[in-house]
Amino acid sequence: MPTYAAPVRDMTFVIEHLAGLNEINHLPGFEEATDDLVAAVLEEAARFGGGVLAPLNPVGDHQGCRLENGKVVVPTGFADAYRQFVEGGWNAVPFEPEWGGQGLPQVVATAVQEIWHAANMSFALTPMLTQGAVEALSVHGSDELKQTYLAKLVSGEWTGTMNLTEPSAGSDVGALRAKAVKQADGSYRITGQKIFITSGDHEMAENIVHLVLARLPDAPAGVKGISLFVVPKFLVNPDGSLGKRNDVACIKLEEKLGIHGSPTCVMAFGENEGAIGWLVGEENKGLALMFTMMNNARLSVGLEGVAQCERATQKAVAYAKERIQGGGPIIIHADVRRMLLTNKALTEATRALAYYAASRLDIARHHPDSAARAEAQALVDLLIPVVKAWSTDTGLAVASTAIQVFGGMGFVEETGVAQHMRDARIAQIYEGTNGIQAMDLAGRKVVRDGGAAFGRLLEQIRAVDSELAAAGPAWDGLKRRLGAAAAAAEQAAQFIIKNAAADSALLGTVAVPFLELVGITVGGWLMAKAGLKAEELLAQGADGSDYLSAKVVTARHYADAVLTRAGGLLAQVEAGSGQIMALDAERF
Amino acid sequence: MPTYAAPVRDMTFVIEHLAGLNEINHLPGFEEATDDLVAAVLEEAARFGGGVLAPLNPVGDHQGCRLENGKVVVPTGFADAYRQFVEGGWNAVPFEPEWGGQGLPQVVATAVQEIWHAANMSFALTPMLTQGAVEALSVHGSDELKQTYLAKLVSGEWTGTMNLTEPSAGSDVGALRAKAVKQADGSYRITGQKIFITSGDHEMAENIVHLVLARLPDAPAGVKGISLFVVPKFLVNPDGSLGKRNDVACIKLEEKLGIHGSPTCVMAFGENEGAIGWLVGEENKGLALMFTMMNNARLSVGLEGVAQCERATQKAVAYAKERIQGGGPIIIHADVRRMLLTNKALTEATRALAYYAASRLDIARHHPDSAARAEAQALVDLLIPVVKAWSTDTGLAVASTAIQVFGGMGFVEETGVAQHMRDARIAQIYEGTNGIQAMDLAGRKVVRDGGAAFGRLLEQIRAVDSELAAAGPAWDGLKRRLGAAAAAAEQAAQFIIKNAAADSALLGTVAVPFLELVGITVGGWLMAKAGLKAEELLAQGADGSDYLSAKVVTARHYADAVLTRAGGLLAQVEAGSGQIMALDAERF
Repeated sequence: MPTYAAPVRDMTFVIEHLAGLNEINHLPGFEEATDDLVAAVLEEAARFGGGVLAPLNPVGDHQGCRLENGKVVVPTGFADAYRQFVEGGWNAVPFEPEWGGQGLPQVVATAVQEIWHAANMSFALTPMLTQGAVEALSVHGSDELKQTYLAKLVSGEWTGTMNLTEPSAGSDVGALRAKAVKQADGSYRITGQKIFITSGDHEMAENIVHLVLARLPDAPAGVKGISLFVVPKFLVNPDGSLGKRNDVACIKLEEKLGIHGSPTCVMAFGENEGAIGWLVGEENKGLALMFTMMNNARLSVGLEGVAQCERATQKAVAYAKERIQGGGPIIIHADVRRMLLTNKALTEATRALAYYAASRLDIARHHPDSAARAEAQALVDLLIPVVKAWSTDTGLAVASTAIQVFGGMGFVEETGVAQHMRDARIAQIYEGTNGIQAMDLAGRKVVRDGGAAFGRLLEQIRAVDSELAAAGPAWDGLKRRLGAAAAAAEQAAQFIIKNAAADSALLGTVAVPFLELVGITVGGWLMAKAGLKAEELLAQGADGSDYLSAKVVTARHYADAVLTRAGGLLAQVEAGSGQIMALDAERF
Repeated sequence: MPTYAAPVRDMTFVIEHLAGLNEINHLPGFEEATDDLVAAVLEEAARFGGGVLAPLNPVGDHQGCRLENGKVVVPTGFADAYRQFVEGGWNAVPFEPEWGGQGLPQVVATAVQEIWHAANMSFALTPMLTQGAVEALSVHGSDELKQTYLAKLVSGEWTGTMNLTEPSAGSDVGALRAKAVKQADGSYRITGQKIFITSGDHEMAENIVHLVLARLPDAPAGVKGISLFVVPKFLVNPDGSLGKRNDVACIKLEEKLGIHGSPTCVMAFGENEGAIGWLVGEENKGLALMFTMMNNARLSVGLEGVAQCERATQKAVAYAKERIQGGGPIIIHADVRRMLLTNKALTEATRALAYYAASRLDIARHHPDSAARAEAQALVDLLIPVVKAWSTDTGLAVASTAIQVFGGMGFVEETGVAQHMRDARIAQIYEGTNGIQAMDLAGRKVVRDGGAAFGRLLEQIRAVDSELAAAGPAWDGLKRRLGAAAAAAEQAAQFIIKNAAADSALLGTVAVPFLELVGITVGGWLMAKAGLKAEELLAQGADGSDYLSAKVVTARHYADAVLTRAGGLLAQVEAGSGQIMALDAERF
């Protein structure tokens, strides 16, 4: 059974032809991100991911993490791999050059990150959390905080965490109770317990920089009284050397369904003299700061969905070619091909969507024209919840289908395919549950502006219609189904816009099918563009005809197997809130 | 967190009003199965399942089984629970009185079995396999075999297994290579290795009766050369006492995604002098014998899906009432209610279908009129693959949704909800993968008779239309959606019937969405009948208005959340085989 081989060919195709690398590398600062450079970076990342991280993935799953004498022990090989990761400069890929980052476009960093998640999702979580800490400090930290922490976080010598959730404050962030009290020297003393802290403690890096949400004594109730603090594991001396241990500790590790290689910590702040922390940004504005990090974090979690799709599908394809039943490999059977081809199409579609969203983030941040930035940002805001929720729901479905391809062997942990379903399951939950993503999309992103930004997206989607028409009758099915899906998505949005104000249960009832409808439609649009471009390149005699002709097939199959769901999803939306509030709790 | 409480109220409602207990207990031999008796049996089973088996469910999951010095050690408490199970007469519930069975209708035994699967699926597998052995021997065994084994298997003092799969013969049964050589005394010597043998060894019972498929030296190749043998763990002396140990051993236990409490064994037959076995039925007719057991086994596996729906939903409902966020329990949120109500509706619909199918099995076996038997059998044949595949696919989806209700706590194994998703996953695979079920439905059960039996089922479904119309406008949505689903199911069937012969890839491509379409439609029909009956009983002032009014709600919600999928599934079927054969294996 081969291990993971990053799909560099599809990655570069998507970056060039769907995410518009040629547009991105004309933005100021990204001039060096040429086709060749991007391909070279991805080839190197593929080598590290496939060669170093992927073989550790089952190790992490089997061994898990342990809390021993107050220290978190990660699985064998993880610390050494992390050292190589830092030395190779991989941690610095997504960051600006100012603090040592490689200054690559987000769309390239996104592809690189997909490789880490596919190779070893548990391993990839540590740098993913560090990325969140870098962003929070880069944008909102004082100069002193930046000087103290950023270079080390960018290099990966230190890692970061995000401390938000408490036992009674999950999706309801405003209920959090951790306390911060200002000291005479301008620092704060932090006390409280946080749960679900990814990489909350470990020995892979010499220091850990915790970003902690807490409440000042006189803070307003709810979300308007939350402040953000930096709390390092080891205090940092003025010369940058490490000082004494701060009063923060991991007191428990969760035993989880998946991502066993990632330590999920219960963190105790200030059990003794109080943990020393420093304010990030302004007092009581912590939640707003969190939100500025969220687009990126949700994109990263969406990528976990894409990555699990890719890895599980690779395993299923390899097994289906190898496994002999009835005199031939099982890949000859239509039922097996259906599973593999649908998995492949969904993997490519979720990837296309994630990279496309990342490219719009590049434009939103770097375009010289403010109108172009604003337009790109509106698209990013619209797409991020779709990337997060649709890709991760798809990640679970694809991983489960991969198990089905294995038959009984899929249920045996030895083959490793079940791990992907277990790992993928968390991505539907954390960084805002998929239900919350759906309500964000339907409420904040569609209803709030009366569907204006969504309408512009639909216009872009419809623009491919004439290209499909011009491409000949072989594209008729895709053309018809994409048109129907776009019409369904528009009708669903109009239904929600019209009825949401009068029916308080509507969003909660229909947002999830609405998001899926938007996801499959946008995915269908990008697959259509991909298929047409592949056919065009084939006609030009471009290299890689196997890849290109397969792309034509997956684009058309996507229409048959996925876009066909649109009508059912519209019907679910139009059923409205129906019986949702009809039962009191006791009759459930 | 409460443990499992069997939904006896819904079970008796379904048995009485959807499965037609009043019809069943007019069949010869079932006269004693009155409403009161059935309710009493279910109440007792609920007590045993909830009180004894359910608390052992997490124990089994955490401990798993061990192979120690050639012996299989089951989790703490399982052996004692099994002793109580046998002493309580529970093992005998599904069997005919001739060998000590309780002679209850299948539909009642089915409800009882749901309780075992929901309380503790790993535990329930041992009696489920014993049931298969009893059926094979009752129908096909010689008088001597019956005398030797049946009474002990019926009581549960001995347990049974089914030895079919080999490393190179899974879905392709014909490839099996285990050998059987006839001896002078009429017995056979069996050699070979079998995998995935549920309860292949354990110490809970004093003997284990293995049913083994093997091939005679001169047997024809493929499925026509397979014979069925009985191979006991301990040979049985003429007086019924146990003799020497047979040459059969468990040599490995699989480490699995779920059902950790159930030992899944690799069994070695005849590693030394050859395992001694006796032929069941005729030589080379083993596969046909297996098929006679399959309807029942597939019904049982379908029930596992129903059971996991019920148990996971109970946990999610309890959590949603308990978990406070934003000042109230999360069950007040529409998004949470959507998940719970859809889970509840799907649980009730899959249950209704399984019990209805079981009741047709009773008629097929016991009706005095042969035409009535044949008609019921045709319906059973049609429904069984739907029960197996739709209920188990739904089991996974519902268990996954239950995790989502728990949010981050759902991913933590401590809460126990993740176990249900892990356990439920196997039911989509074993006893014929759900892909195989779908092809059985579309091919053998629909195409083969030109849709005749399916057409009669659709007629029944349409007959509820006028009742819905008469029941008033509150039923309009359900009426319209059920009508649309039935029309879609018919159109899909016609499409398949018309095109299957000319397109060899069609069945494999479209059978899975076709089966889902049939499942949701039949489920919708039974939910409509249930809702109408509940409303009628409410109008009569019947007891249990909370239950009855909730049934009206779940029936209508089923239309909004589930029947709405019909159009999308029809579109998937009508997309045909499309791109399925377009890629050679290397381009996947």
